[in-house]
Amino acid sequence: MTGRTIGFVGLGSMGRGMAGSLLRAGHTVRVWNRSPGPVAAMVAEGAEAADSLAEVFAADTVVSMLANDTAVERLLDPALLAGAAATLHVNMATVSVALAERAEERYAEHGIGYVAAPVLGRPPVAAEGRLNILVAGAPELLERAEPLFAAMGERTWHFGVSPRQANTAKISANFLIACAIESMAEACSLAEAHGVRPTDLVEMLSGTLFPGPIHSGYGSMVAERRYEPAGFRLPLGLKDVGLALEAGAARNVPLPFGSVLRDAFLDALAHGDGDKDWAAVAAVARRRAGLPD
Amino acid sequence: MTGRTIGFVGLGSMGRGMAGSLLRAGHTVRVWNRSPGPVAAMVAEGAEAADSLAEVFAADTVVSMLANDTAVERLLDPALLAGAAATLHVNMATVSVALAERAEERYAEHGIGYVAAPVLGRPPVAAEGRLNILVAGAPELLERAEPLFAAMGERTWHFGVSPRQANTAKISANFLIACAIESMAEACSLAEAHGVRPTDLVEMLSGTLFPGPIHSGYGSMVAERRYEPAGFRLPLGLKDVGLALEAGAARNVPLPFGSVLRDAFLDALAHGDGDKDWAAVAAVARRRAGLPD
Amino acid sequence: MTGRTIGFVGLGSMGRGMAGSLLRAGHTVRVWNRSPGPVAAMVAEGAEAADSLAEVFAADTVVSMLANDTAVERLLDPALLAGAAATLHVNMATVSVALAERAEERYAEHGIGYVAAPVLGRPPVAAEGRLNILVAGAPELLERAEPLFAAMGERTWHFGVSPRQANTAKISANFLIACAIESMAEACSLAEAHGVRPTDLVEMLSGTLFPGPIHSGYGSMVAERRYEPAGFRLPLGLKDVGLALEAGAARNVPLPFGSVLRDAFLDALAHGDGDKDWAAVAAVARRRAGLPD
Amino acid sequence: MTGRTIGFVGLGSMGRGMAGSLLRAGHTVRVWNRSPGPVAAMVAEGAEAADSLAEVFAADTVVSMLANDTAVERLLDPALLAGAAATLHVNMATVSVALAERAEERYAEHGIGYVAAPVLGRPPVAAEGRLNILVAGAPELLERAEPLFAAMGERTWHFGVSPRQANTAKISANFLIACAIESMAEACSLAEAHGVRPTDLVEMLSGTLFPGPIHSGYGSMVAERRYEPAGFRLPLGLKDVGLALEAGAARNVPLPFGSVLRDAFLDALAHGDGDKDWAAVAAVARRRAGLPD
Repeated sequence: MTGRTIGFVGLGSMGRGMAGSLLRAGHTVRVWNRSPGPVAAMVAEGAEAADSLAEVFAADTVVSMLANDTAVERLLDPALLAGAAATLHVNMATVSVALAERAEERYAEHGIGYVAAPVLGRPPVAAEGRLNILVAGAPELLERAEPLFAAMGERTWHFGVSPRQANTAKISANFLIACAIESMAEACSLAEAHGVRPTDLVEMLSGTLFPGPIHSGYGSMVAERRYEPAGFRLPLGLKDVGLALEAGAARNVPLPFGSVLRDAFLDALAHGDGDKDWAAVAAVARRRAGLPD
Repeated sequence: MTGRTIGFVGLGSMGRGMAGSLLRAGHTVRVWNRSPGPVAAMVAEGAEAADSLAEVFAADTVVSMLANDTAVERLLDPALLAGAAATLHVNMATVSVALAERAEERYAEHGIGYVAAPVLGRPPVAAEGRLNILVAGAPELLERAEPLFAAMGERTWHFGVSPRQANTAKISANFLIACAIESMAEACSLAEAHGVRPTDLVEMLSGTLFPGPIHSGYGSMVAERRYEPAGFRLPLGLKDVGLALEAGAARNVPLPFGSVLRDAFLDALAHGDGDKDWAAVAAVARRRAGLPD
Repeated sequence: MTGRTIGFVGLGSMGRGMAGSLLRAGHTVRVWNRSPGPVAAMVAEGAEAADSLAEVFAADTVVSMLANDTAVERLLDPALLAGAAATLHVNMATVSVALAERAEERYAEHGIGYVAAPVLGRPPVAAEGRLNILVAGAPELLERAEPLFAAMGERTWHFGVSPRQANTAKISANFLIACAIESMAEACSLAEAHGVRPTDLVEMLSGTLFPGPIHSGYGSMVAERRYEPAGFRLPLGLKDVGLALEAGAARNVPLPFGSVLRDAFLDALAHGDGDKDWAAVAAVARRRAGLPD
Repeated sequence: MTGRTIGFVGLGSMGRGMAGSLLRAGHTVRVWNRSPGPVAAMVAEGAEAADSLAEVFAADTVVSMLANDTAVERLLDPALLAGAAATLHVNMATVSVALAERAEERYAEHGIGYVAAPVLGRPPVAAEGRLNILVAGAPELLERAEPLFAAMGERTWHFGVSPRQANTAKISANFLIACAIESMAEACSLAEAHGVRPTDLVEMLSGTLFPGPIHSGYGSMVAERRYEPAGFRLPLGLKDVGLALEAGAARNVPLPFGSVLRDAFLDALAHGDGDKDWAAVAAVARRRAGLPD
């Protein structure tokens, strides 16, 4: 089967890897990015450069991987959608449930297929095409998108026929990561205050009850107080906790752990840790307990 | 090498498996239990019955696996210790850090070696001799206990030379389990309120970020609202959260997640869920959000 | 002294009383309201009806008392301000600090004086001209507004030269009311669970430590579980708690009590108490404790 | 009417004032204290010195004002009670509900009347005989105690026939004070972060919504960061918050504000503020927000 022509928006550290995966799978990829540097790099790898979002939306299928709600808003521009030839937009960003709902409606108004497909995995995983992809949307649309998911990810997880369901799942997943970090931060402070080495604690935990990448990865960062370089910056963590709280508020779902997390992230920002990894929320737990920095 | 004679106190569901492992390893095991039923069962497997704690403490090495601080207190009885021939006591119970400190002092006063060795694993794991054993104590004492650990567990984790360090680690581990349950409970409520099936969410989480037994096991209990039969009863969970909070208070370590957990467990008890598994704390998260039982 | 001509926007239950106070003080009051009913009522009391906001802003001084940020936004319309003859706008609504900052800038751009003057007091107090008025703004502007404050209130409290300072103070005051309600709710649940009559508790508290209107008024509502009719509806309470949390987030100020409040209000809404007084958050405390409705 | 002979135990800063009030009312007061200094001072004022608790309990009526549960325990000594001529013990200390229950039972076993009468008011108020007294117990016992209450206090508040009810009310009152301090601490941090002077905020609050002694007194301490000299030391505050949480746990009453308070007080102790007034919990709110000490 010959590849399709894919419009691709958003060449951040994740998007570059994902667009590269599409190229390797034989697709023609027409890329657009707010800043030109990453476009040139992708063209060097074989992509086409689009001069405008309109050119991107001239392709049958558009994939986007943008940073946040604000960036995604421009893909909801009625003028853009009215002139689009595209019949399918695959939005892979982590956005709010509220935006997901609005996007769903807007695309329906313009008769363009829309699916949500946020991902789990860091940039190296994106570059290798081994992401976990959380998808939701109309079955026939997901079927059309499946070859693209296969190129970018190692597994696709289905959450329903309404795109917002995938966004909810992604927000929930990030919420659980934040909870895991905070819980290890508290446990490590408790342990250290009683003379247990946090690294011993984390090694045991990740060797027994919590063998996954989150507890071992963030656990060692917390235990070793290694918050730099930032893999995922603390303000982004606060943003994602905020997405969970906001989604909760929209349906009257209290999230007490989420409230604790929000307060802890604010405390971290108040102490100047905004450029550190979100694991630096552990410094808040240490400070509360009077443990040295 | 011929086995040693081991005094063993506490034949609950965990202790029976552990004493059985010692028997299979060729040791002579002299057992004592508050109620006689389990003693008879162990004698049928080849153990000796002790008529009193004093008889147990006539053995060179004593292993105990009791339910809580109150039960362990009787092993600190000065009269018992003064008359003991034992030179080593291996306390495998989950007890408070405060009791651990008191026990340490008491045994030192009587010149009896004391190590703490609480375990991770449920009764079937204990029966198979595949526990994870968290140990702390003087190195020469741990060396003497090592063959017993090898019989009962598949791995030993070291936390220091002071017994209380192992208790701190165990309390921290249970604290993390409770945090994992609560975080999944909140996430599942959020997901369900937005039309995502909790089972889909948990399947994805345990297939990606959180592959371990806690998230998959408790995650499915939470997602399916399957709180019975109780593997670990809710009041025991509250007790263990209380041990973490108490240990925190002893060193001025605030544990905000622990505070949320305590309130949630009390809420569960107030609603009559005291005979259910501690996963039933998820019913509190659902109730807060007005989701059906 | 003859009165001035005052444009007045917003004839809700508070605004009507305040506009009436201005009329009684001898001012000409030109009123505008989104719905026409209250306008007719005020005209019957001697006010002039404005056909548009532009007519209101033709007066030298404009006073507004609107429900929330969204309603106030229309008073920031550049077209409205560009055509305005007004040289002073006194905004008496409870709005977000963020909106206060935006309003400040916008009015400065159009060279129109702007002061914030949110109030404490319920509609009957507004009708009697006995409000407490929390003000901030340039001294010369406040001096011009002082006769209006004197007509509407019994006391003016000053918070600085920047309008947003008064909004911060008002948000803080409402935050404290919410904290007082929740703390009495928890205390009454505790008391009742131990056989103390909540009404006895509240009577003692308001007769000793907490003699003010909040503790006696809300205290008796909480103690008697009397949440209707609503003096201040629960969703408005959640909105105001949200204003505090949002203002906190803008300056990295964690508000743990605020987080607890938010979760409790969401819980109340999830149980259908949205039409009750915000004292109904006490039903959440009772439910958590398994006390009867 | 000639006075009675009263045994009085506990001559701390509160007890001295209370015993003095009883003397002034014409009673013979036989005092006992753990340390002898205060006894001598009271004898100089006209009291009799008791050589032992047994001598105190030879009086018909015993009044005690001790610091905490541990100190009160000695008044539950079966040997002491078996030999007592006393027929009424008025316990005015702030003790746990659990101790109150135990005391009730113990005195009943020995056929001695027992009432609880904890107080509101600081030492100067005690010295002036103007305390608020929170009482509970059998009506005929309270009637006998009434002349003593009249001597020591300006008002008596009744909570029921079971002594523990008065203790619950007292614990609830102290819980509300702690909540008021924390809520003002958070509000003052929020205000300051937005350029509002905390003293302006507190002045307005105590001049309007919250006119009582708690908000004005603690409010100004919080606003001025004046935590010394300590009127009520921070660890005592943590103890009282703990009494509320413990009483809550005994009846499955979650107290989320109480949990936040506990964490905040621990944080304060972790930062060395144990000798300051419990208003110093405000330093925790400031630190969380990155505000200067």
